[in-house]
Amino acid sequence: MKDMRLVEERILKEGVVLDGDVLKVDSFLNHQLDPVWLQAVGNEFARYFSSREITKIMTIESSGIAPAVFAGAAMNVPVIFARKQRSVTLSDNVYSTSVYSFTKKSVSELAVSKSYLGSADHVLLIDDFLANGQAAKGLIELCKLSGATIGGAGIVIEKAFQKGRNVFEKEQIEVYSLARIRAFENGVVKFAADQIDRD
Amino acid sequence: MKDMRLVEERILKEGVVLDGDVLKVDSFLNHQLDPVWLQAVGNEFARYFSSREITKIMTIESSGIAPAVFAGAAMNVPVIFARKQRSVTLSDNVYSTSVYSFTKKSVSELAVSKSYLGSADHVLLIDDFLANGQAAKGLIELCKLSGATIGGAGIVIEKAFQKGRNVFEKEQIEVYSLARIRAFENGVVKFAADQIDRD
Repeated sequence: MKDMRLVEERILKEGVVLDGDVLKVDSFLNHQLDPVWLQAVGNEFARYFSSREITKIMTIESSGIAPAVFAGAAMNVPVIFARKQRSVTLSDNVYSTSVYSFTKKSVSELAVSKSYLGSADHVLLIDDFLANGQAAKGLIELCKLSGATIGGAGIVIEKAFQKGRNVFEKEQIEVYSLARIRAFENGVVKFAADQIDRD
Repeated sequence: MKDMRLVEERILKEGVVLDGDVLKVDSFLNHQLDPVWLQAVGNEFARYFSSREITKIMTIESSGIAPAVFAGAAMNVPVIFARKQRSVTLSDNVYSTSVYSFTKKSVSELAVSKSYLGSADHVLLIDDFLANGQAAKGLIELCKLSGATIGGAGIVIEKAFQKGRNVFEKEQIEVYSLARIRAFENGVVKFAADQIDRD
């Protein structure tokens, strides 16, 4: 049983579509957080990926942390969040990779400590958004550098009209998105066909 | 019933004391996160502050988010995390203040949206560390700017030998720290008198 309406209904109620295909969900996911809702989100990821023998959840600061820790609590596995750094000198003790942000129009470094990611890990990637897949590329690269394998990706909101999903599919990583947006039409969110779609 | 050993024992087990009175707790609080433990931390804050009629929890990205969202889930109140920005032009729609970081030796801006903090709010502040109190000052200032009142502060680890607590006490804000460190002696963590203290 998918529980996708959890996210769709929240987007329809509170999401704001801005210019440039930006969906603002600051009231519950990206600035203010609704912990009870995020716990349900985390629980749903845990349920879906329960059979994958996940040893660690990996996400990116800051908006990925809340869904990741609730999933981690439900799955009883540690969470590691990759740190964004702006081309500071990184210590020898981290795996790092460069990530381009289309929204910020800048390159930043993504880093995780070598102490907490390694070849024994089977990782569930969790993030708030999947759009063009730059963050996804970064997370996959960090796993590769460490020798960790990837057991799946849990996404809260996917912009299905952008190419992010391809990044995972190219690596044969299954993506489970709780809401898939097919388009923004005149400021109205349209979900992919298997989901609810209201005007 | 205080449940302080939850944090003390974890520090004794995994904390690493570095030069300059830095306590590294990257394995469970600042980089890798132990969600089951953090949920217990959040539950303890929720228990302690349950009678304060809190309407919102406020923290700072990134390490404050996990303890804050677990407390928020237990108290059924929204969480807002202040964003750290590096003196970028801030929009009109935020309250912002400058915060000096002793560890990073730099000034950054701390900002919250005016949409999610206001005079109707009675706020519980939650953060991972209390040391010199600069972050605390910033959070208090943001609440003041918005007209919100403060119902208390929940701290995971307090360096009681630094002056951070004074920042709260000057404003008559009660601080509840789950671990209070009195000193680092030859790389060994010593807790304040009311807590466990082992060699």
